[in-house]
Amino acid sequence: MKLWSMPSSGNSYKVRLLLGLLGRDCNIIDVEYLTEALDRAKASGRLPFGKAPVLELDDGRLLPESNAILCWLGEGSTFVPSDPFTRAKMLSWMFWEQNQHEGTVAVRAALLNYPHRRAQATPERMAALLDQGHAHLAIMESRLSAHDWLVGDAVSLADICLYGYTHTAGSRGGFDMARFPAINLWLGRVAALPGYRGIGK
Amino acid sequence: MKLWSMPSSGNSYKVRLLLGLLGRDCNIIDVEYLTEALDRAKASGRLPFGKAPVLELDDGRLLPESNAILCWLGEGSTFVPSDPFTRAKMLSWMFWEQNQHEGTVAVRAALLNYPHRRAQATPERMAALLDQGHAHLAIMESRLSAHDWLVGDAVSLADICLYGYTHTAGSRGGFDMARFPAINLWLGRVAALPGYRGIGK
Ligand SMILES: N[C@@H](CCC(=O)N[C@@H](CS)C(=O)NCC(=O)O)C(=O)O
Ligand SMILES: N[C@@H](CCC(=O)N[C@@H](CS)C(=O)NCC(=O)O)C(=O)O
Repeated sequence: MKLWSMPSSGNSYKVRLLLGLLGRDCNIIDVEYLTEALDRAKASGRLPFGKAPVLELDDGRLLPESNAILCWLGEGSTFVPSDPFTRAKMLSWMFWEQNQHEGTVAVRAALLNYPHRRAQATPERMAALLDQGHAHLAIMESRLSAHDWLVGDAVSLADICLYGYTHTAGSRGGFDMARFPAINLWLGRVAALPGYRGIGK
Repeated sequence: MKLWSMPSSGNSYKVRLLLGLLGRDCNIIDVEYLTEALDRAKASGRLPFGKAPVLELDDGRLLPESNAILCWLGEGSTFVPSDPFTRAKMLSWMFWEQNQHEGTVAVRAALLNYPHRRAQATPERMAALLDQGHAHLAIMESRLSAHDWLVGDAVSLADICLYGYTHTAGSRGGFDMARFPAINLWLGRVAALPGYRGIGK
């Protein structure tokens, strides 16, 4: 099993984190922005949607999309709730992450940190992303002020997924994380899980 | 079972379409943009993420996110492939729809059709959305020129999901659908399914 993975990306990191938590071996191939490795991976057809991460099975089958990879790897593990409605709510958070949270929390961090994106970081856009991102983080805060995890009573793929960009929302995205004490406690719970690995590891 | 649904929205329509295909009854509550019904639904806490659609079960439990609702309603039906890897690829398309396709194909249509969004429709933004949307549609075209459906050999939730905004990409979004003959044939296959209902029905 191979993972075509971008070292700096929260989407790729989510998958590396789950692999660590599951104790699974995987050949990680780095494809960073603005490197030939990324161009080569695209040219070889390994990135069906033109983006990392992609999981490549031993028989060559390719699975794109970080959250679909989480579902595939997590199937049958304790990270997928057995109760069907809890599982459906796990997916709600994961689709919300891709449709709402990623478009503010991850995009603001990308505009601040990737040199090839900086030209798009106009003051108006950065201010709007700050407000919208705080509103998205407030939705997580609201759930986490009354519960340890995003769904049910235990850590699930929803937590792994949202951890990806939330844990660097302050340092990379410039969000004011002091407003979100319940998120900060939850970040600590994720980081204390056995097998945890950081984004740089 | 109730569906808090926005009549004009492809995300809400996907769910109405699946309900039709499954022959399932559901109390549809219209919450259109710029109406009091939407404000009331938000104020009553029925929209956990502030957006429609939301499925409300008879016991009051709420499930937001169109694609999570599709998974919940489709579970155990022929719209969810039994092969695990095919199911994983179905989810790939659905996450891609929320993260990539919706941000261009649906957003361009929203900027053109919703009066409260028109101020955001600058010429530069509309031109960029046109190019990016055509690139997203080309990814679908590439799959559909060799296969009848997005995954496996049969219609799945991936097709219902992508149909939502793709079938109005020309009429509402201004995309040049003549470039995508395989998509047009696939749109016809979806519209011929028993139980099909159109977006206005
Ligand atoms: N929805 C995708 C998004 C993946 C994505 O946006 N990947 C970016 C890095 S975060 C990428 O590979 N970009 C390469 C490019 O656009 O050339 C997922 O969750 O896997
Ligand atoms: N990711 C969500 C997106 C839903 C969404 O964006 N809904 C819009 C209509 S298309 C909405 O309810 N907007 C109301 C508002 O923002 O006030 C889904 O797929 O259900």
